[in-house]
Amino acid sequence: MKYCSHCASELTYIIPDGDNRPRFVCPACQAIFYQNPRIVAGTLPVHNGQILLCRRAIEPRRGFWTLPAGFMENGESTEQAALRETWEEAQAVVQLQSLFSMITVPHIDQVHIFFLAELEKAEFAAGDESLEVALFNEEDIPWNELAFPTVSQTLKRYFADSSAQQAAHVFDIGISQALAKGLKSSG
Amino acid sequence: MKYCSHCASELTYIIPDGDNRPRFVCPACQAIFYQNPRIVAGTLPVHNGQILLCRRAIEPRRGFWTLPAGFMENGESTEQAALRETWEEAQAVVQLQSLFSMITVPHIDQVHIFFLAELEKAEFAAGDESLEVALFNEEDIPWNELAFPTVSQTLKRYFADSSAQQAAHVFDIGISQALAKGLKSSG
Ligand SMILES: [Zn+2]
Ligand SMILES: [Zn+2]
Repeated sequence: MKYCSHCASELTYIIPDGDNRPRFVCPACQAIFYQNPRIVAGTLPVHNGQILLCRRAIEPRRGFWTLPAGFMENGESTEQAALRETWEEAQAVVQLQSLFSMITVPHIDQVHIFFLAELEKAEFAAGDESLEVALFNEEDIPWNELAFPTVSQTLKRYFADSSAQQAAHVFDIGISQALAKGLKSSG
Repeated sequence: MKYCSHCASELTYIIPDGDNRPRFVCPACQAIFYQNPRIVAGTLPVHNGQILLCRRAIEPRRGFWTLPAGFMENGESTEQAALRETWEEAQAVVQLQSLFSMITVPHIDQVHIFFLAELEKAEFAAGDESLEVALFNEEDIPWNELAFPTVSQTLKRYFADSSAQQAAHVFDIGISQALAKGLKSSG
């Protein structure tokens, strides 16, 4: 971030009046450019006890398995974002049931939100960003080929405590956990 | 958004290859500028059955009452953001208990997250952005002087069903609800 997107002047990086941390500020038009975390929204789709996973066709983590999820867009709700991503990546129509996990990944400035969802019919297909999409029994989950710690943690908590499925799991991914899984490259 | 923040060239607004919606794209350096919703994080602080509210010293909704909350910053978790805002606005140290509500406000591209929190000691004071801070019994909540629909909905759900306090309430604020409360001006 070097130039003002309103007037093209060169930006300064200073603490604005009344603030307590440095921001990109335009000395010409006084615009302040805040930088905030982004939301990744997705689903944990369940069909007769099996989980729907997508194998990624794009970087980061191409070839690894993930729950359908992606960046929330302006103008949509978290639920709409989760449903849209499930359609785009897995060509699946699901019914949202409840918020399952909300996980901050602070070192890449992301918050990942997964809704528990029911996939009524076993109808799905690989979208543009997926190599393949498949249903997995618990014993067949490819734990060593999962794309991101937020996905593995969400799946782990789902299988660990099925009685807690209606309560939200709110937690953070530490940098050590993330580096071990290569999440840093997703930032 | 008119100029590229990397190279100061004039931006175009087009659908990039492999995307399905228009973005600000730099024709010179190819940078794509995504715009995504921002997270507002805060707490629902409870002390012996009373709720801690802050009267806003700043626009929008100056003079109206709110739960302590504000924009999540890069590098922090949702919980850290909620605790920081509670300290900054109400000079209160609370213990987070559980995620209570996650509310999308799509027309201003915000997601509001409130954690249920315990205020052990009745110690608090007005921070820079508050005119006053006070504890309220349920019957004294200033329902007609609340700043935002996300705050009134969160309080309403808290009092409506105390047994559901451990489960997350996930919902959206429609534009009609928001306009009625003047939330539009908070965008
Ligand atoms: Zn400027
Ligand atoms: Zn450029």
